[in-house]
Amino acid sequence: MSLLIRSSYLSQPRNSKPSSLASDQTPSKLVSTSSFNHNPLVRLVSKRNPTMQNLTFPSPTTVKSSLIDPDGGELVELVVPESETKLKKAESMPKVKMTKIDLEWVHVISEGWASPLKGFMREDEYLQSLHFNSLRLKDGSLVNMSLPIVLAIDDHTKEHVGVSKNVALVSPQGDIIGSLRSVEIYKHNKEERIARTWGTTSPGLPYVEEHIAPSGNWLIGGDLEVFQPIKYNDGLDHYRLSPKQLRREFDNRKADAVFAFQLRNPVHNGHALLMNDTRKRLLEMGYKNPILLLHPLGGFTKADDVPLDVRMEQHSKVLEDGVLDPETTIVSIFPSPMHYAGPTEVQWHAKARINAGANFYIVGRDPAGMGHPTEKRDLYDPDHGKKVLSMAPGLEKLNILPFRVAAYDTVEKKMAFFDPSRAKEFLFISGTKMRTYARTGESPPDGFMCQSGWNVLVKYYESLQESDESSKQQQAVVSA
Amino acid sequence: MSLLIRSSYLSQPRNSKPSSLASDQTPSKLVSTSSFNHNPLVRLVSKRNPTMQNLTFPSPTTVKSSLIDPDGGELVELVVPESETKLKKAESMPKVKMTKIDLEWVHVISEGWASPLKGFMREDEYLQSLHFNSLRLKDGSLVNMSLPIVLAIDDHTKEHVGVSKNVALVSPQGDIIGSLRSVEIYKHNKEERIARTWGTTSPGLPYVEEHIAPSGNWLIGGDLEVFQPIKYNDGLDHYRLSPKQLRREFDNRKADAVFAFQLRNPVHNGHALLMNDTRKRLLEMGYKNPILLLHPLGGFTKADDVPLDVRMEQHSKVLEDGVLDPETTIVSIFPSPMHYAGPTEVQWHAKARINAGANFYIVGRDPAGMGHPTEKRDLYDPDHGKKVLSMAPGLEKLNILPFRVAAYDTVEKKMAFFDPSRAKEFLFISGTKMRTYARTGESPPDGFMCQSGWNVLVKYYESLQESDESSKQQQAVVSA
Repeated sequence: MSLLIRSSYLSQPRNSKPSSLASDQTPSKLVSTSSFNHNPLVRLVSKRNPTMQNLTFPSPTTVKSSLIDPDGGELVELVVPESETKLKKAESMPKVKMTKIDLEWVHVISEGWASPLKGFMREDEYLQSLHFNSLRLKDGSLVNMSLPIVLAIDDHTKEHVGVSKNVALVSPQGDIIGSLRSVEIYKHNKEERIARTWGTTSPGLPYVEEHIAPSGNWLIGGDLEVFQPIKYNDGLDHYRLSPKQLRREFDNRKADAVFAFQLRNPVHNGHALLMNDTRKRLLEMGYKNPILLLHPLGGFTKADDVPLDVRMEQHSKVLEDGVLDPETTIVSIFPSPMHYAGPTEVQWHAKARINAGANFYIVGRDPAGMGHPTEKRDLYDPDHGKKVLSMAPGLEKLNILPFRVAAYDTVEKKMAFFDPSRAKEFLFISGTKMRTYARTGESPPDGFMCQSGWNVLVKYYESLQESDESSKQQQAVVSA
Repeated sequence: MSLLIRSSYLSQPRNSKPSSLASDQTPSKLVSTSSFNHNPLVRLVSKRNPTMQNLTFPSPTTVKSSLIDPDGGELVELVVPESETKLKKAESMPKVKMTKIDLEWVHVISEGWASPLKGFMREDEYLQSLHFNSLRLKDGSLVNMSLPIVLAIDDHTKEHVGVSKNVALVSPQGDIIGSLRSVEIYKHNKEERIARTWGTTSPGLPYVEEHIAPSGNWLIGGDLEVFQPIKYNDGLDHYRLSPKQLRREFDNRKADAVFAFQLRNPVHNGHALLMNDTRKRLLEMGYKNPILLLHPLGGFTKADDVPLDVRMEQHSKVLEDGVLDPETTIVSIFPSPMHYAGPTEVQWHAKARINAGANFYIVGRDPAGMGHPTEKRDLYDPDHGKKVLSMAPGLEKLNILPFRVAAYDTVEKKMAFFDPSRAKEFLFISGTKMRTYARTGESPPDGFMCQSGWNVLVKYYESLQESDESSKQQQAVVSA
């Protein structure tokens, strides 16, 4: 079921200039032509002129392993070679038990998605992340880091660690999976962390309720070592390509541009429109072989989101159906858990994709957003995500591609970019609305999603109802 | 009663190297000498090596108007020359009525304390401030900007402004005091603003209750013009030196270092110790004429803080008494309102002093902090202020001088730097404790504050009790 369909290599040499670019034309000039101004890339890369280095091609003599450097210059990899020796040493260290989400972060850090972060944050890093959404490196430069990547421990564990310099990290299943070296323990002010990360302290934030509220009052930071690559054994591990593997894959494919699409929902034709349109624009700009990184988030998601395995099956159908071109698409799982922290989180989503080798990032309406947990409104202004992303420190080298929202055009009977001049002819199908369709067995409007993909969702919601009914029956038996 | 006691000019030329510096010794090397390492400046400027330009003296041929450049390179000044013409034009514009605190911000912006900010923030600036505590300039560099400086309007005013490009700003007394040009109106999400600025949404935050909660649901940004310098006519205006005036004064005094001390409380001998110690250290480093900017905050403060006029009288006594040296001290009022937003606000306090020409900034325990409004704890970790300040983007050119806390040494009978090895011999006298002493007429321990300064406080609290009793008597008459 692998979607890693390898395209035959194209003849265009990776490092040459796109042929449509005359020598006195820089790509940034091309970007501002009128044909491009009318397209749905509402804020253009030309606005980011000081950082257009990704659009200027390296000279043929330059040999680079990828299109964009990882943050900090070098990809962090923390899976240690002599794992046997290390494991033995770790057995004598104080143990820190982790949750499933902690382990997802270990995965993220160990593969370098958070480069140059080398472990769970110490207090200096935590404070910079919380206040500045960035980290200052020793050379004075900034990298983006909008989410605190931290490990919480309770009073008992803190006492147990005592003055030990190093601790062993234990998976929820009880296995020692790595260690944290030269640790620092500091206070976990949950209220402040939540307020500064989400811009609200309202009850009902999924990540907070699942992960932060039940966690301990201390944070432990240090340098991470992992003894084995993190695996989930859920039949999807082959989709979990590390940043290093992805970079190699882009090179193998001789990609001259990589555009990443972050998602946590099934792919509908609106998403496809946006991705295909990006590719078209990149080709018009002179790129010969732009590759799409379709990059569903694989870590924690809220209970009413569609589970990862169902989404991966749905994505598979979308590619089989040809809605997206398998020849120029790589589907892989992004192992991060989801915060639903809107403008703060979208920076993390973009930053991690730099480390994976993407030099273009697509951002739509209200990225990483959700409804306010207690009020009848979006938690974030739907435009703030793309605005904040386009101004974020440390993301200057990434080309941000903000898109107008796509909606169902009831006249053309297809997903199209929303045209405010005929607003009434558009139908907005939210995630909630889509799930309601699927749950009730009702079909969405023709052209909303390819049929085979839709069937995956219907099947999933049917199975939910069945298990729901059988649990109701069981409850009835119990209460009878 | 002016405290601007002008020292006779010293013979040392301003731009020459301090005589104790050999030609191969940079001041940064001197900073790390062992004598300096044992002093209470717990984290030294030597940690900020990449940005030590303030410690390297300009060559004698360089002519600079000050020791440190304003943020953005040029001091913003928004009091317009042709005020008559401008005023006439403004009379035809839609009017925006301001509160007392709004007017304090107009004062702050118009004199360039917030340079390079040229008016109330538009949304791009607001978002950068809220998420990154900094603003990116056109040249790609960052300046610090941790507090959103914004003007709120209600639905009615928004409708009234309509599509007008420019609006007139009206003081609480009904006078047109300036205009805002090329305005932009955007949503005022109070919850998000509060959460990201204070790290809590708890009820009881003084600035929030006084200013944000009652304000409108929209923010209006634009370029500010002010027709007259802002005056308060409270007998203290002569203390209100603008950044430009302060810079001129430092030049007149031939200061070769300016160290700023922000305060909103009466000066006790612990503060004095810290300021005098800083001066001593700067002299040891080779500076010939370090000048202290004693810079009490003059805008909004919470109800139980000591009012500005009383503080100014108290500061005056402290200088008359010789606790601080009038020859090397400038006392001036910083016109900003107080947020009590701890690590977020201390950046603003430091940044504004850059614009006023200070190149050293003293920071102590829990700057701009207060007790949590609803929980029995400090709202902020007392160490976070100095940590965040020392890492803040845009403050690299400022030398941060973090201090250990001073407390009353019951053995030596004086204020001294706290020595943890004999913790029991120290008495911490908080602001609340100090106010209780003054209110109950009890004397604080000998050596806590000079007697003449203390008398000012006692007199103030007596007057409070008198007015309290007379209002009780009046109430008794009314209810009788």
